[in-house]
Amino acid sequence: MSSQRATAFVPGHVTAFFSAHPADDPAVAGSRGAGVTLTDGVTVRVSAPEGAVDAPEGAVDAPEGTVDAPGSAGDAGETTIDGEAGSIGAVDDVLAELDALGADVAVETDLPIGAGFGVSGAAALGAALAANEAFDRGCSENDLVRIAHAAEVGRGTGLGDVVAQARGGVPVRLEPGAPGVGELDGVPATARVEYVAFGELSTEEVLGGDTTALSAAGAEALDRLRADPRLPTLMNAARAFARDADLLVSEVETAIEAVESADDEGTEGGDDPGAAMAMLGRTVFALGTGLSDAGYDPEVCRIDAAGARLVDR
Amino acid sequence: MSSQRATAFVPGHVTAFFSAHPADDPAVAGSRGAGVTLTDGVTVRVSAPEGAVDAPEGAVDAPEGTVDAPGSAGDAGETTIDGEAGSIGAVDDVLAELDALGADVAVETDLPIGAGFGVSGAAALGAALAANEAFDRGCSENDLVRIAHAAEVGRGTGLGDVVAQARGGVPVRLEPGAPGVGELDGVPATARVEYVAFGELSTEEVLGGDTTALSAAGAEALDRLRADPRLPTLMNAARAFARDADLLVSEVETAIEAVESADDEGTEGGDDPGAAMAMLGRTVFALGTGLSDAGYDPEVCRIDAAGARLVDR
Repeated sequence: MSSQRATAFVPGHVTAFFSAHPADDPAVAGSRGAGVTLTDGVTVRVSAPEGAVDAPEGAVDAPEGTVDAPGSAGDAGETTIDGEAGSIGAVDDVLAELDALGADVAVETDLPIGAGFGVSGAAALGAALAANEAFDRGCSENDLVRIAHAAEVGRGTGLGDVVAQARGGVPVRLEPGAPGVGELDGVPATARVEYVAFGELSTEEVLGGDTTALSAAGAEALDRLRADPRLPTLMNAARAFARDADLLVSEVETAIEAVESADDEGTEGGDDPGAAMAMLGRTVFALGTGLSDAGYDPEVCRIDAAGARLVDR
Repeated sequence: MSSQRATAFVPGHVTAFFSAHPADDPAVAGSRGAGVTLTDGVTVRVSAPEGAVDAPEGAVDAPEGTVDAPGSAGDAGETTIDGEAGSIGAVDDVLAELDALGADVAVETDLPIGAGFGVSGAAALGAALAANEAFDRGCSENDLVRIAHAAEVGRGTGLGDVVAQARGGVPVRLEPGAPGVGELDGVPATARVEYVAFGELSTEEVLGGDTTALSAAGAEALDRLRADPRLPTLMNAARAFARDADLLVSEVETAIEAVESADDEGTEGGDDPGAAMAMLGRTVFALGTGLSDAGYDPEVCRIDAAGARLVDR
């Protein structure tokens, strides 16, 4: 079912804690850790130029599985981000890998960029899903996740968002890497999610530095969550990780404390899972109504059950 | 976040083709193959009796990860299926495994039972997700899928529905078995699905007989789909499998031919992926509008992107 245009939605992903596992092979590199995928996410629309898809609609006997790639011979397409011309390295690499450099790509998101929501990974994975469909490339889901993961890791903009975003829910990355290499589990849960973004943090800078202490703290947090895969434990482990890895920024620390105070004062006696910092961004997120209760004016969404997917239009 | 009640939704799953891989260990047993998960599915509501959940709400310092199980000492709960008292073996086994035999379980579905939609697997997986939440058992998603898969395999009512239903989309079972043993991929796709159920076929009878020819046909179909993971190839491989495995029943054969004729006569020149038989049921399903176009009055739903999930209420 070839089509010249296709659209994918990929949930945002806030990492609660992680350990970094670099490797020469980008399919093997990645991170262990856990986070929350969000119904707020990234929509990617891909249009293939005329002539880039060689299977004419209605050709019953067109040989399947054989794709010439005239699209690659054409001019490079245009990428827009929320309507403005722009470029995302990992998206370019995905298009090159799928022989779809002629694609026009429109990336749209309400999420803040560079604030720990995995927007670059989501754009890469959305581009992979939509370009595969628009150019009729015939890749499987694992192929596409692998391509997007490798592009994201290769650009140094993320290590674990793509595989988490492909799964949806509350993904736990047991082993790092792309499908066939890494291993995932999940915390079974549905919940309201609130967040406030105070600004950017450079993923490249943190991941490019010494990650020894960070990874030790991430490994400890993962052990805690594996022993008790519940949301309150996820949030407790996330708070401990941010402190131990020395990543906590002051606006986020203040917000976490405010959520805790408001919960202690609440009539329900303080059983809220509280707030934590999104890795890596100057962003605080909470499960439930913690940030509203503490007087913030957060964005509100939910845990996304589905993960990355093609959508109609 | 313990709660005394919880609800899960699990998509229906029609298997397009499969090979059977029995084993003594039910987590290792399973099937290879592929199918389609449906937005029509099974809703399972679980209520824990008073006193069965030992973590009182609001107890901040309740030790996490330690669960006594007074629920298991109580009376057995009641199970209803679409409002009528009933029982599903795999559901009982899931409740026993989660020490939740006191649960009241309400299974609701619009899908026909015994007609190839994986209702028993969906009920088992939904019971696992909802009972874990209602009884605050603290299992991970992989744990719960493993428990439901083992229950379904142990009862002989299915081999691959549970892992497919947990994933959602168009699951491809590359290796048989529960999470940690089996391996999955997917065909990236969204589509309208139509189906007509003509009646039951006994899964136990087919799986209990000689499955050599069936499994050879299933392995061939899987090879075709892996070489070209697209929906039309899935449907072609499914039709070949039903013939080669000698499972095609006459009402379904007639419907598949009617869909093909209607497509050939259509103005768009016959590029529809057509219809196939749901394994194992006297059921025909089509992607797109094939059955409507051929004059049938099918049920209509879509491919379910999300897979099994907890839902509010």
